[in-house]
Amino acid sequence: MELALLYSGGKDSSLAAVLLDRFYDVRCVTGTFGVTDDWQHAERAATELGFPFDRIDLDETVAREAVARMYEDGYPRNGIQYVHEHALETIAELDVDAVADGTRRDDRVPTVSRAQAQSLEDRHDVDYLAPLSGFGRHAVDRLVEVTFDVEQGPSEEIPKSDYEDELRVLLAEAHDVDAVAEVFPDHEQTYVHGRTD
Amino acid sequence: MELALLYSGGKDSSLAAVLLDRFYDVRCVTGTFGVTDDWQHAERAATELGFPFDRIDLDETVAREAVARMYEDGYPRNGIQYVHEHALETIAELDVDAVADGTRRDDRVPTVSRAQAQSLEDRHDVDYLAPLSGFGRHAVDRLVEVTFDVEQGPSEEIPKSDYEDELRVLLAEAHDVDAVAEVFPDHEQTYVHGRTD
Repeated sequence: MELALLYSGGKDSSLAAVLLDRFYDVRCVTGTFGVTDDWQHAERAATELGFPFDRIDLDETVAREAVARMYEDGYPRNGIQYVHEHALETIAELDVDAVADGTRRDDRVPTVSRAQAQSLEDRHDVDYLAPLSGFGRHAVDRLVEVTFDVEQGPSEEIPKSDYEDELRVLLAEAHDVDAVAEVFPDHEQTYVHGRTD
Repeated sequence: MELALLYSGGKDSSLAAVLLDRFYDVRCVTGTFGVTDDWQHAERAATELGFPFDRIDLDETVAREAVARMYEDGYPRNGIQYVHEHALETIAELDVDAVADGTRRDDRVPTVSRAQAQSLEDRHDVDYLAPLSGFGRHAVDRLVEVTFDVEQGPSEEIPKSDYEDELRVLLAEAHDVDAVAEVFPDHEQTYVHGRTD
């Protein structure tokens, strides 16, 4: 069975790939708004893990709407959620049996409710899987530790492909760098460099 | 890492076992109130799948309280939920790194909320995993189909070990067989007979 996984090169979506690999032909798919080449980080991480990779073009209008929303809010949550839903809708159009993402039980954003999941499945005739949604932060960290060689650090220093960098660029363009610092508080990111074994 | 999985011999907990097997030393654990020998069905199913098995004694007071609740309600949901929570608390006392169950995204009962999961983890210093909570009914059915040799039929004819039979017996003892028919409407159950491959 063919599965398209929304993939960032980070630990969560990498762990989701390994979990789903037991049952599906997993393809790591990274969405891009065409603003930066950050999707290449995800391609490199997927290749190091041995999964096929695809880049998929997202609608730049969605990115601009998300950026406007984040600037208005003063925080990124609703903008990120909007982009994630758009990315899921986009990969659900692919010719696959299932789509998936790396959302965890403890994530505040993005989240996909049971009703949203069912709606996505019904409209696109595809299964939606969130294999980590029954795993808490501690369990994910332990599994990541035994499974991957991980680089961790402040989000602006870690190569990644989770739309955040593209949204930062668009936010700086629409406003200025102070707006970026205001909307995106410092937080830690991870990037996966292959497996430990 | 050692993991104790609440196991019934049905398709959901069997699929959970296979998913978790990628990362954990999975032990299938079936709780019993000592009312029937139904736990033996789960032992047989676990053995056919190649997983170690343990029986664990549950508190019969809990079963009697659950039966009283179900009789009062006229439906089994709250009683089943109560027993499931007791079973999770019981296996969380075992010397393991993680406990798990086979609850799915679309299950109405039992359910374990994010707050309940966190509380269980904090009080017992253990990870709680619900590996199927991000999988809908359709996805589970497809994965079961390619993974297991399954027997399906009305719940009273399928050998299983999900407390239901023990609760039925206690309900009949406390009241009569009409009470059992009233509380437990007909529904389909599954029993796993080994793998397809």
